Amino acid sequence: MTVINRAIVLDNRPEGEPSTSNFKLVERLLPELADGEVRVRNHFLSLDPYMRGRMNEGKSYAQPQPLGEVMIGGTVGEVVSSKNSHFSVGDKVVGMGGWQEYLQVPAGARGVLQKVDTTHIPLAAYLGAVGMPGVTGWYGLTQIIAPKAGETVVVSAASGAVGGAVGQLAKARGCRAVGIAGGADKCAYVVNELGFDACIDYKAHGDVKSLGKALKEACPAGIDGYFENVGGMILDAVMLRMNAFGRIAFCGMISGYNGEPIPMSAPQLILVSRLKLEGFIVSEHMEVWPQALKELGTMVATGKLKYRETVADGIAAAPEAFLGLLKGRNFGKQLVKLT
Amino acid sequence: MTVINRAIVLDNRPEGEPSTSNFKLVERLLPELADGEVRVRNHFLSLDPYMRGRMNEGKSYAQPQPLGEVMIGGTVGEVVSSKNSHFSVGDKVVGMGGWQEYLQVPAGARGVLQKVDTTHIPLAAYLGAVGMPGVTGWYGLTQIIAPKAGETVVVSAASGAVGGAVGQLAKARGCRAVGIAGGADKCAYVVNELGFDACIDYKAHGDVKSLGKALKEACPAGIDGYFENVGGMILDAVMLRMNAFGRIAFCGMISGYNGEPIPMSAPQLILVSRLKLEGFIVSEHMEVWPQALKELGTMVATGKLKYRETVADGIAAAPEAFLGLLKGRNFGKQLVKLT
Repeated sequence: MTVINRAIVLDNRPEGEPSTSNFKLVERLLPELADGEVRVRNHFLSLDPYMRGRMNEGKSYAQPQPLGEVMIGGTVGEVVSSKNSHFSVGDKVVGMGGWQEYLQVPAGARGVLQKVDTTHIPLAAYLGAVGMPGVTGWYGLTQIIAPKAGETVVVSAASGAVGGAVGQLAKARGCRAVGIAGGADKCAYVVNELGFDACIDYKAHGDVKSLGKALKEACPAGIDGYFENVGGMILDAVMLRMNAFGRIAFCGMISGYNGEPIPMSAPQLILVSRLKLEGFIVSEHMEVWPQALKELGTMVATGKLKYRETVADGIAAAPEAFLGLLKGRNFGKQLVKLT
Repeated sequence: MTVINRAIVLDNRPEGEPSTSNFKLVERLLPELADGEVRVRNHFLSLDPYMRGRMNEGKSYAQPQPLGEVMIGGTVGEVVSSKNSHFSVGDKVVGMGGWQEYLQVPAGARGVLQKVDTTHIPLAAYLGAVGMPGVTGWYGLTQIIAPKAGETVVVSAASGAVGGAVGQLAKARGCRAVGIAGGADKCAYVVNELGFDACIDYKAHGDVKSLGKALKEACPAGIDGYFENVGGMILDAVMLRMNAFGRIAFCGMISGYNGEPIPMSAPQLILVSRLKLEGFIVSEHMEVWPQALKELGTMVATGKLKYRETVADGIAAAPEAFLGLLKGRNFGKQLVKLT
């Protein structure tokens, strides 16, 4: 039986802001399944900011996405045929399946495909709260910010998959959680549904001074930990409100991906306030994933970790949805439904 | 017997660059020695960059220097009279004696005056290599940079008391030590006398690109640890050459004390290179001083930790010497001889 696999490849690299013309939809016949291989029908594709970095050629923490190859991306799906004794038809799996409808791989190497249990946790959650974004939030909060009960933790992009986890994990540790998000809708969601203590709409603040005033009101005891997802003006404003010995986890800096310079205005605050700033990439800390996933999975299964998803329909919609993500048009975890 | 104490007070705060007119020399009669008090004849005063921060009124990590009061500063000296059973005439002591010829204090509280042994270590060294600057270098290197043998450590202001200690302690740990200093003389000293592997004259490099090229040559395997003493362009150039998981200890940022903004050009490198940046003030970590002083004292006594001093003569010369320090005119530890 011939199966056509529809996929999105990177056709050319963006100069400045990316556009849909950087991508191309291709249709390819899947080869016969070889011994040891598994064929997975991808159900959901995860779209994440890190993919923007991969589109560039320059030095980054990861190899650039090769031109003409299927865009990298996390997926969840179901095994539809298997020539590997560890996987059976019907198994639900998570893996780096890419921007495509099918993933066909030798499944022997550890970590290529991970079976997941969907009894209490929805399949798509393994791409969000119980997946890479959730673990990213968990790592930055628990391993870098390491807050004590009573401290104040601020997180930018708070309505997203990472930010939402950071704030709810901080609340679970007895902290004051303050979000920063774009727009009144997202802020209301962050406070009313995710249970943050406050959320600041950065779009309502045009400069560092105005944003700083809002931070002062939302964080009357100062800021002890900051989970950095965006960079630029927000970072400057937060740094001015950090308490002595504050910690900043650098997870993403969306405002810098298009190559614009985004200087930090007052690095002397690192000394003045004795701050610790640390960048991390969660895939380099696989040793903590089991512990993180256990806490995140339990919280999702028991309804203590809430999240929201924005779902684009079909592989052809992935580039547009990705560009929307970079502009903050998504609301919660951005997925593409592939079935 | 009446004793006149000559002292330097802060007369007014600088607007921008400080000048000698910010200071005033005063003569005051010492009061009679009260019970529990000790009178110390200060032999040497230490001049340090942190004092510049104290001259400002604004928010910093420490209280501003009050106007009309004796400038704060570390001193070494000799007890000349005592009404405290723990101190005898002739004892050599280190303390925060200030910019003055005599220190007269209740010596009961722990840490006000510390007796020191000058059998193998010169008295003035307790203000430098075996004092606050030495411990500052030790702390940043061992507690923040924490280098492994074979790694490359860069330190700015390398010919100074802090920087010199950082490089020599790094060498003692099997690292490649690379200094940055101002001028060919200082660089030659850093390499030939202090034993660094290389030293870059930042005055020979007008921009980040040129300095970056010199760093690339001096650090062929990249930079794993950076001890930050100055800020500005040097920080930018070093960050571009940092290896993944590099550590930066922020100790001082001279270029920022006059209130000029000194942005960090590319904070996204914190994420891209997964850097850790940490500011510290050594007086907040008294718990490590005994361990640090033991290593530093042993190295000085055995000739393994070398240093140089620039000594101004007499209390009246202190302001001019301090302004010179801020401009990098000193060569090694800046002291004022008070006897």
